[in-house]
Amino acid sequence: MDNSSHQRLRQVGQRIFTAGGASTDEATLVTDVLVDANLMGLDSHGIIRIVWYMDDLLNKKIHPGVPLTVCRESTTTAVLDGGGNFGSVVAMQAVKLAVEKAKQHHLGCTTVYNCHHMARLGAFAEVVARQHNMICIATASWPIAGHYVSPWGGREPRLATNPFAYAIPTNGDPLILDMSTSAISEGKIRLFRNQGDELPDNFVLDANGAVTRDPNDFYGPPPGTILPLGGVHGFKGFGLGMLVEVLSNTLSGHLATAEGPYGQRACFIVVDPSQFAPPAEFKTAIEELKSYIKSSAPAQGYDDVILPGEYHFRRKAHREREGIPLDPETWDQIIHTARRVGVEIDETTEC
Amino acid sequence: MDNSSHQRLRQVGQRIFTAGGASTDEATLVTDVLVDANLMGLDSHGIIRIVWYMDDLLNKKIHPGVPLTVCRESTTTAVLDGGGNFGSVVAMQAVKLAVEKAKQHHLGCTTVYNCHHMARLGAFAEVVARQHNMICIATASWPIAGHYVSPWGGREPRLATNPFAYAIPTNGDPLILDMSTSAISEGKIRLFRNQGDELPDNFVLDANGAVTRDPNDFYGPPPGTILPLGGVHGFKGFGLGMLVEVLSNTLSGHLATAEGPYGQRACFIVVDPSQFAPPAEFKTAIEELKSYIKSSAPAQGYDDVILPGEYHFRRKAHREREGIPLDPETWDQIIHTARRVGVEIDETTEC
Repeated sequence: MDNSSHQRLRQVGQRIFTAGGASTDEATLVTDVLVDANLMGLDSHGIIRIVWYMDDLLNKKIHPGVPLTVCRESTTTAVLDGGGNFGSVVAMQAVKLAVEKAKQHHLGCTTVYNCHHMARLGAFAEVVARQHNMICIATASWPIAGHYVSPWGGREPRLATNPFAYAIPTNGDPLILDMSTSAISEGKIRLFRNQGDELPDNFVLDANGAVTRDPNDFYGPPPGTILPLGGVHGFKGFGLGMLVEVLSNTLSGHLATAEGPYGQRACFIVVDPSQFAPPAEFKTAIEELKSYIKSSAPAQGYDDVILPGEYHFRRKAHREREGIPLDPETWDQIIHTARRVGVEIDETTEC
Repeated sequence: MDNSSHQRLRQVGQRIFTAGGASTDEATLVTDVLVDANLMGLDSHGIIRIVWYMDDLLNKKIHPGVPLTVCRESTTTAVLDGGGNFGSVVAMQAVKLAVEKAKQHHLGCTTVYNCHHMARLGAFAEVVARQHNMICIATASWPIAGHYVSPWGGREPRLATNPFAYAIPTNGDPLILDMSTSAISEGKIRLFRNQGDELPDNFVLDANGAVTRDPNDFYGPPPGTILPLGGVHGFKGFGLGMLVEVLSNTLSGHLATAEGPYGQRACFIVVDPSQFAPPAEFKTAIEELKSYIKSSAPAQGYDDVILPGEYHFRRKAHREREGIPLDPETWDQIIHTARRVGVEIDETTEC
């Protein structure tokens, strides 16, 4: 496995997406969200996704350049139609509209549908905290074809992995949580299967609704399901998944069983903390909270206490210096995808 | 263990609290929140709490009759000082102010501090869904003296069990989640200890930061801590606990290490779904979601799939008919508490 610089990967992504018909701005944004995910150690949401995105772009399941349209709007809220554009292009516009509303009315909430995959949901919350000093809660769901997660007590898929994310501004990196409400993501099950390993905990049911640690039981046939987050407290993960479903899907105007439109739905809630405390006092309180949390002695098996998001920001600093590790199979797939749109990439992963 | 009717318990609670100095309205509200928790099967948040509440009332740590004051306010937001009144009295006013703001501006968010224990946090979200057809997200925290939960990777207490609740309106009972963001509540650890049982999972660290299943290790001395929700994914429960902390405590104007004022802090976010879809369409979509979820065949070991809150509404229907089971020790404590304020209660638990 070789390392590639993030600058090089950004260039590669931009070239591929613009060759596929995206504007420079859209290609840059989509690529940046993916490469930043790699930098943060979230490789399953990184540039490996170029392959899928380009498949869908060439099959006209992504419509670059199509503007967002406003379906319903109030002073503090909006329902937005992404027009089938890239998920990150649409999500960034949707979250910024929620920020604009919060700047005027202290709270803002937008929902959005009809766009492709958003990649790292936390990326959009992060922009709110970092650039606007506001708190953002973000949720996202998929239509029925993307449902892999069983409800609590059930054995048939009824929800997507339904991520829940937030970002809170600090004087340094934001506090960021970006979690699926399921016990494990599909991408990680695939990894265990490819490596021939058992799953490390009770994350999956087989098609008969029995707990299994064999990742093959998830894929079937007949396929199994992913359990909600929480183990013996799975009602908590299921309950959170249902909140994500209602905010993202119902509030963007869709039935749970509706097959289309293709792609993700999401909800962005923005809270302006300056209405609750003067900005300097709020930041002081957050810094004091950070110090208090980190002052705990470590548990056995841990070196220190890390804040929400801190692990990923450490990875980012490391990978900005050392490069992003890319396995040969992923790199081959990207080179092959590039060739489909006439882009030739130097086959070495090194920059 | 005898059963007592909820009407009888409501009468008992009202008599005790009014004898302690609360108005009829406040005594009724506080008692109703507790008895409803019993009806829903949440006995740890039920009338057993009368004993503690009356201790604090008689020690002037609760100030009945004191009105809520508004510390900061905008069109959509407010920070409220509960004046040391009962938690449920204050929380009900705080959530209703968030509803008033949402009725005018489609979103509302209030934070509140300086009030006693709120008991079942979901009770206040439930009112929003049931009476106002809006969505409510509610969070609550305690000052440092109530911190029992370790941060992810740490062994010293840095958070309270920090509950996260929501309610979503439907044509029937609301969808309700009311969960701690810790692996287990202190009350449940106490139950395992009193029964001489091991904890059923890795919920607790001993004072050295090692996982233990002995409930005595939590109490010490030296005391241990409760792990965040999520087992191997404890960063998720910790991340949710941090969100609850910031919304409830920081946004009500407090430092994490501030010792006072005594009692709970909370945040109520209200979203008016009518701004996202016509009310009839929203309800249709929620009913369709409910049916879709419940149509899943059960997993092994389960009879059926239940919606968030459904278990507790089933318990409520059962206990409204059959009465609320009360152990003799709890009943003795309540009778003793009543006598402290000159209230004589018929010692049989039967109505």
